[in-house]
Amino acid sequence: MPEKLTKRSDDYARWYTDVIQRAELADYAPVKGCMVFRPYGFALWESIKDVLDRMIKATGHSNVYFPMLIPESLFKKEAQHVDGFAPECAVVTHGGGKKLEEPLYLRPTSETIIWTMASKWISSYRDLPFLINQWANIIRWEMRPRLFLRTTEFLWQEGHTAHADAQEAQQECSQILSMYRGLVEDYLAIPIVVGRKSEAEKFAGAENTYTMEAMTQDKRAIQAGTVHYFGERFAKAFDVKYQGKNGQLNFVSTTSWGISSRIIGTLIMVHSDDQGLVLPPRIAPTQVVIVPIWKSDDQRRAVMDVAGKLKEMLNAKFCTKIDAREEYSPGWKFNEWELKGVPVRVEIGPKDVKNHQVVLARRDSGEKSSVPQESVLKTVAEMLQDIQASLFRRAGEFMDANTHRVDSYEEFKSTIGEPGGFLSAHWCGDAACELAVKEDTAATIRCIPLDGKPESGQCVYCGKPSERRAVFAKAY
Amino acid sequence: MPEKLTKRSDDYARWYTDVIQRAELADYAPVKGCMVFRPYGFALWESIKDVLDRMIKATGHSNVYFPMLIPESLFKKEAQHVDGFAPECAVVTHGGGKKLEEPLYLRPTSETIIWTMASKWISSYRDLPFLINQWANIIRWEMRPRLFLRTTEFLWQEGHTAHADAQEAQQECSQILSMYRGLVEDYLAIPIVVGRKSEAEKFAGAENTYTMEAMTQDKRAIQAGTVHYFGERFAKAFDVKYQGKNGQLNFVSTTSWGISSRIIGTLIMVHSDDQGLVLPPRIAPTQVVIVPIWKSDDQRRAVMDVAGKLKEMLNAKFCTKIDAREEYSPGWKFNEWELKGVPVRVEIGPKDVKNHQVVLARRDSGEKSSVPQESVLKTVAEMLQDIQASLFRRAGEFMDANTHRVDSYEEFKSTIGEPGGFLSAHWCGDAACELAVKEDTAATIRCIPLDGKPESGQCVYCGKPSERRAVFAKAY
Repeated sequence: MPEKLTKRSDDYARWYTDVIQRAELADYAPVKGCMVFRPYGFALWESIKDVLDRMIKATGHSNVYFPMLIPESLFKKEAQHVDGFAPECAVVTHGGGKKLEEPLYLRPTSETIIWTMASKWISSYRDLPFLINQWANIIRWEMRPRLFLRTTEFLWQEGHTAHADAQEAQQECSQILSMYRGLVEDYLAIPIVVGRKSEAEKFAGAENTYTMEAMTQDKRAIQAGTVHYFGERFAKAFDVKYQGKNGQLNFVSTTSWGISSRIIGTLIMVHSDDQGLVLPPRIAPTQVVIVPIWKSDDQRRAVMDVAGKLKEMLNAKFCTKIDAREEYSPGWKFNEWELKGVPVRVEIGPKDVKNHQVVLARRDSGEKSSVPQESVLKTVAEMLQDIQASLFRRAGEFMDANTHRVDSYEEFKSTIGEPGGFLSAHWCGDAACELAVKEDTAATIRCIPLDGKPESGQCVYCGKPSERRAVFAKAY
Repeated sequence: MPEKLTKRSDDYARWYTDVIQRAELADYAPVKGCMVFRPYGFALWESIKDVLDRMIKATGHSNVYFPMLIPESLFKKEAQHVDGFAPECAVVTHGGGKKLEEPLYLRPTSETIIWTMASKWISSYRDLPFLINQWANIIRWEMRPRLFLRTTEFLWQEGHTAHADAQEAQQECSQILSMYRGLVEDYLAIPIVVGRKSEAEKFAGAENTYTMEAMTQDKRAIQAGTVHYFGERFAKAFDVKYQGKNGQLNFVSTTSWGISSRIIGTLIMVHSDDQGLVLPPRIAPTQVVIVPIWKSDDQRRAVMDVAGKLKEMLNAKFCTKIDAREEYSPGWKFNEWELKGVPVRVEIGPKDVKNHQVVLARRDSGEKSSVPQESVLKTVAEMLQDIQASLFRRAGEFMDANTHRVDSYEEFKSTIGEPGGFLSAHWCGDAACELAVKEDTAATIRCIPLDGKPESGQCVYCGKPSERRAVFAKAY
């Protein structure tokens, strides 16, 4: 029997790392801050990537690949951008056995290289909108690494688009936000607050950053994806102009947007439990596992015969595995597949064969039920749907229960400590108040919700008039 | 009308670059030796990748992702390996605003980081075979860059496997070679010679390297993929041991194998012509393009109505595009889709609508034929199959016609200049002869074919006894 996982209530951070390593999703690499995606972890990333890639293409974007090496001079063309990213960069100074004349940065994001190239390709309104995406590895130096959530190298997709005017670029931002929401809510079963970042928290060089914020089981905020609107800032820095229908030259308006492998960390933090991973059926690499149970060789033959037929039937609709290993006991296997978060387990032993039934076990609730063999397919289909819906509902209820409206700074300070969670509070818009709150309480403004209704009130810190609430929280 | 492409007979190297840039497959990036995969080029890579990824998974390998940063100390553990690769490496010396204590190499291949990690994961015969693959970007400093063929950064898949013994590892090499042959011959329609590399040409650190060599239209050899057998060399350098069933500790035997985005260069060099790209139907991102032709608005409506229905019908089986752009003439569009190598073009004008027919044009031969609308689907299906087969046959005939058996060094030297091609000649196995031939003629040993029958003869250079012929050629 493998030793038990750390419990969430005993040590949440250790529980998180334990789940990842024990479920064989990932491991630390010999370079500080870097990690290895092991087969199960990469299969999970591939299944998220497949869904998102289809969505990105269905909305008219084409995949591309740009170099990961960016000359220092290009990187410095947009002043805010370089100020924000340079401190996190890794720098190549030697190549091919020689010192380079100009240092090369490993991409921390690709705006600078993409708009350098696109300025060659875009010349007319016919070349717009320019809609591209790339799946790539990214390097941002990380001092306090944590598997998936904070690593020096991570995987992501970065979309970059250029449009004829600001309005079209803003529409792109809305379209991508709703595409991302589709992935995060409908596939990952993660409830989110969608909003705009404050000046202090936005992407270096952006006019606006939009974010999706989820809540972990230790009631912190975690960013699930971001969308940036740049106006003409990068177009001006990289001279990306087009001739309009009337012949005049205009700068394009650009956006960029990304979801990274950090989302796997979010997924774990939102759904998993003291038995290990809990995966939403729609992105689980294995949706159903069949564990045959036998003692004698005769029993083995009879059980494996039925199990094999069930596997074939289920596998036509769901990714189904059969665990026929001889060197492990059924109980050991149950634990293992619970640890790995497989949504439905099918158990079948000699008695089940005789009674033409199987036992189904749900990973989310642990419930077990006996089901006639002829209705297994239908019942499993319904069960998977129900698990998907119930994970989303449960996480939504948790987020709601831990979101608090606070109207005084005393209340703010006491609530952020215990019970914690998301604090919906008025903010005047002044960066000084934001900073003071952060220094006092370690809570930051996660976003100004897009669906927040205008509401008159007083800034929770300084008391000046405010028209809207922001969401404050401690964050990963 | 866009200006004409350079002809192959005028300047083969310039023709190659022209085709790539004009078909918008790729472009040079601001860092010397680096390139950008534009949407059409990346779609081509994705379609090759999809086929190969399915094959890799179907043979039991799992995808993973390892860090691209490799500490210098790990990189130096296998002596031949570091000697071979270090001169081509890019080195990170600064990260997070500080000079690093130990330089980090950008992976030129991942053996060193993978076996460092796997030595933690492999301990028992139950952990074998260990079968992984990763899709990744690779950096090898390139002094004489050429789009796709030689670039400082390129994309590839690298498979890495560990086995209980040498025999099983050798079987893996054979299995992968036959999988690769399936991709290259059946999908890319590229004929190849499969063989073993000489000591001088093999991968740094390998006991054996197997290669697939194709022939370009300027009769040079080009490597389409390689498979390496390492014996216990990396296992010893990185201490990868397992406990066998009988309890004793053994080193694993390892392999690695890769196909890179260079294969796109090979594809172009083998099939394309003076009108531009020629793509085999099975990997063409767009298999069929419909060009509607009209003069009046009435004609436009009637033509677009039929074209739209045809598109829907064809698109259910083949990736089909309709080019309804108003700002370009039909003739311009014909050129454009020829340049982009789309295998079949469907032309439909007012007369065709009236006669319930369309015109089909084949990209490979340029032949045009009128076909009744009701048999378009069937005819296009047959035509795509025929194009696929005929590209492979034509390239095979070209390779055969340009492969020469030579039995004296005089003949060797005169043949390698003109007509050129592959020279099948006896070689004694001595590296000194191989080097002398290379210095004299610029031809290298591409491989010792695996299907070559034992045959007694004399080394073409020194005259000593030889048991087998090798393939010599000038190579990319």
